[in-house]
Amino acid sequence: MFLTVRTVGEALEALAGVRRSAIVAAPPALGVVPARDVTAGEPLPGWARATVDGYAVRAADTYAAAETLPAFLELTGSVRMGELPRGAVGPGEAMAIPTGGLLPDGADAVVMVEHTTEPMPGHVELLRGVAPGEGVLQPGEEAAPGDVLTPAGRPLRAADLGLLAAAGVTEIPAYAPPRVGIVSTGDEIVPPTTAAPAPGQVRDACAPALAGLVREAGGEPVLRGIVLDDADALERALAEAVGRDDVVVVSAGSSVGARDLTATVVGRLGEIVCHGLALKPGKPTLLADCDGVPLLGLPGNPRSALVVFRLVGIPLVRAVAGITAPPPPAIVRAELSRDVPSAAGRLDVVQVSVRDGVATPRFGSSALLGPMVGADGWLRVPEPATGLGAGTMVDVELYG
Amino acid sequence: MFLTVRTVGEALEALAGVRRSAIVAAPPALGVVPARDVTAGEPLPGWARATVDGYAVRAADTYAAAETLPAFLELTGSVRMGELPRGAVGPGEAMAIPTGGLLPDGADAVVMVEHTTEPMPGHVELLRGVAPGEGVLQPGEEAAPGDVLTPAGRPLRAADLGLLAAAGVTEIPAYAPPRVGIVSTGDEIVPPTTAAPAPGQVRDACAPALAGLVREAGGEPVLRGIVLDDADALERALAEAVGRDDVVVVSAGSSVGARDLTATVVGRLGEIVCHGLALKPGKPTLLADCDGVPLLGLPGNPRSALVVFRLVGIPLVRAVAGITAPPPPAIVRAELSRDVPSAAGRLDVVQVSVRDGVATPRFGSSALLGPMVGADGWLRVPEPATGLGAGTMVDVELYG
Repeated sequence: MFLTVRTVGEALEALAGVRRSAIVAAPPALGVVPARDVTAGEPLPGWARATVDGYAVRAADTYAAAETLPAFLELTGSVRMGELPRGAVGPGEAMAIPTGGLLPDGADAVVMVEHTTEPMPGHVELLRGVAPGEGVLQPGEEAAPGDVLTPAGRPLRAADLGLLAAAGVTEIPAYAPPRVGIVSTGDEIVPPTTAAPAPGQVRDACAPALAGLVREAGGEPVLRGIVLDDADALERALAEAVGRDDVVVVSAGSSVGARDLTATVVGRLGEIVCHGLALKPGKPTLLADCDGVPLLGLPGNPRSALVVFRLVGIPLVRAVAGITAPPPPAIVRAELSRDVPSAAGRLDVVQVSVRDGVATPRFGSSALLGPMVGADGWLRVPEPATGLGAGTMVDVELYG
Repeated sequence: MFLTVRTVGEALEALAGVRRSAIVAAPPALGVVPARDVTAGEPLPGWARATVDGYAVRAADTYAAAETLPAFLELTGSVRMGELPRGAVGPGEAMAIPTGGLLPDGADAVVMVEHTTEPMPGHVELLRGVAPGEGVLQPGEEAAPGDVLTPAGRPLRAADLGLLAAAGVTEIPAYAPPRVGIVSTGDEIVPPTTAAPAPGQVRDACAPALAGLVREAGGEPVLRGIVLDDADALERALAEAVGRDDVVVVSAGSSVGARDLTATVVGRLGEIVCHGLALKPGKPTLLADCDGVPLLGLPGNPRSALVVFRLVGIPLVRAVAGITAPPPPAIVRAELSRDVPSAAGRLDVVQVSVRDGVATPRFGSSALLGPMVGADGWLRVPEPATGLGAGTMVDVELYG
């Protein structure tokens, strides 16, 4: 079999044209990905509103007002929240208005209550002048009809939910969260619920961890169970996953035999894009395109599998989810506590703890999850580098 | 009424002793907060396993082995994945073993297949020696009984889910996600589903946005509807929320009248900790302790409310959720594009866009959500500063 090893960047490029998940009508919620720009159908706000507590006036009546020479206006009423003002503001007149109140006809500004006095009932003195529009939120100032409220491809955040609610948008066209089928393989793998695995058996650590990362990426994990190391059984399981899910993830096994088996079966279902990544840990990674459904074959060691899934799987799930504006990674800069060796030509991912600005690598067999569980994040030793020296300032990508 | 204005730091300190949410038994899942350290009940792995494909041997038989003088061992069988080895490895013997295979009795190391040849059936030549333990994951190397698998107070991440699954832990003591009651107030507020608000009415933008932030913080939002600006109605609604929820959030209103009403009612239900924050936007913030249930009265402007909730509400919800190891904020360093004025003595929060390392402030009335929707994050102008000059390097806290 012709073996293609790619860098992580090349692998992501090869998968750039993946098919997006279905577009559905969804209520706005955190993380929902708009499939189109959502635009305003009406001006927001719909009417001019006061942005301060005070008096609605005609600005022209206030030009000369000052502490030494107050403007003296007739108080003709007050605006109540949520109601139409009773009456208009004529020349020489004012109406009391609360923040958020609807500006009465005739008025074009609001004087803050702090700059006024009521020297006698039915009148108000202004100690300061206002320009037209002062103290007023204009119709359409938040959004005019047709303005983009939330852009396509950026998962909705809290402020987006507020703006959509303000605009009365209760449903938007959105990409469905990608279904990510997770197939565990291996004669030695038993479910995590197994109370006492027999000698040689290990509980499935990979599938639950991957399910967590799939959720982090905005996908919907579909646990498709454990399949024995048998070509026909694996082909049936993968064919079903490819038929039903938007992305398929399978353990490519930790032994060469298991990996070969997975590669053979995947080769029957689609076109293999790469047989390995220039990455440590994570070299034995398989990428395939199964009639538009991307398939990711992961190393058998859970930690290697998680590293690969963060580097390749999460961008893949996000692409299928229609996310074109992914959030930037959470990064902290820190000083490396010791030398980190690496080999040129491959990307090295090193787990690190960060305390007081110092990043301490946590090494250990990639068969161990502990170094990752105990880490605050990771650093990358890029492909061209042969290592990083103690004291180097590094960017640590933090776990959430 | 005696008005207490506090800094954000002081407000958080005043709420440091909040009551945590109930401890429940929960299956491990992303974001679940362990209420106690979760420890291993059995050694992980339970048995010595091969970490490479190769041959299980006695290291003592391989000491002198080299390309020029291979060690010659009798091949007595092979280990199958997930099964007990058939037989042991005696002196001068070897068994083939795949990665993950159970180390046979007698063997204490595994020679990688790359360093061997099989010159004739039933025999293997080793081209390199191995030390005892090489190529082997020892019992308990991932975790010994009693070792902490995942610490209390840190929300579970993907790797934690893997480790707990490996250990067969399918339920842990965890803090229940805090129930956060959200009460909207205001005679002008109507539900977001209102197709055509009457003049002066506005749809409730705050509650859906806050619900999003509550979820971000790991809480469970409970939308408690819209209450008119009426003391008795508000007291009933808040008393119900305080009785049922772990944290209560209420719009303190945007007009002075509405804020006074909220403060009066809250004063009847608990002890007011502060009447205002030295913060812009977000000054009119109310904090109270209602018999151990923290209550947060937010400004009426949705954007101010969201700023206050990020600064005070999220830490509060996290504290109630038992989170003692919150994730560090996602920060990017950028150069400020223009001067940002501020007043000494208060914290200013400024929305910014970040492009190519340049942070551009997005100003606008705090009645507008737009500047926040269009921003990538925010920067803080700390209490002592009177502003930041163009060209200053600033830390921008990014929205997720």
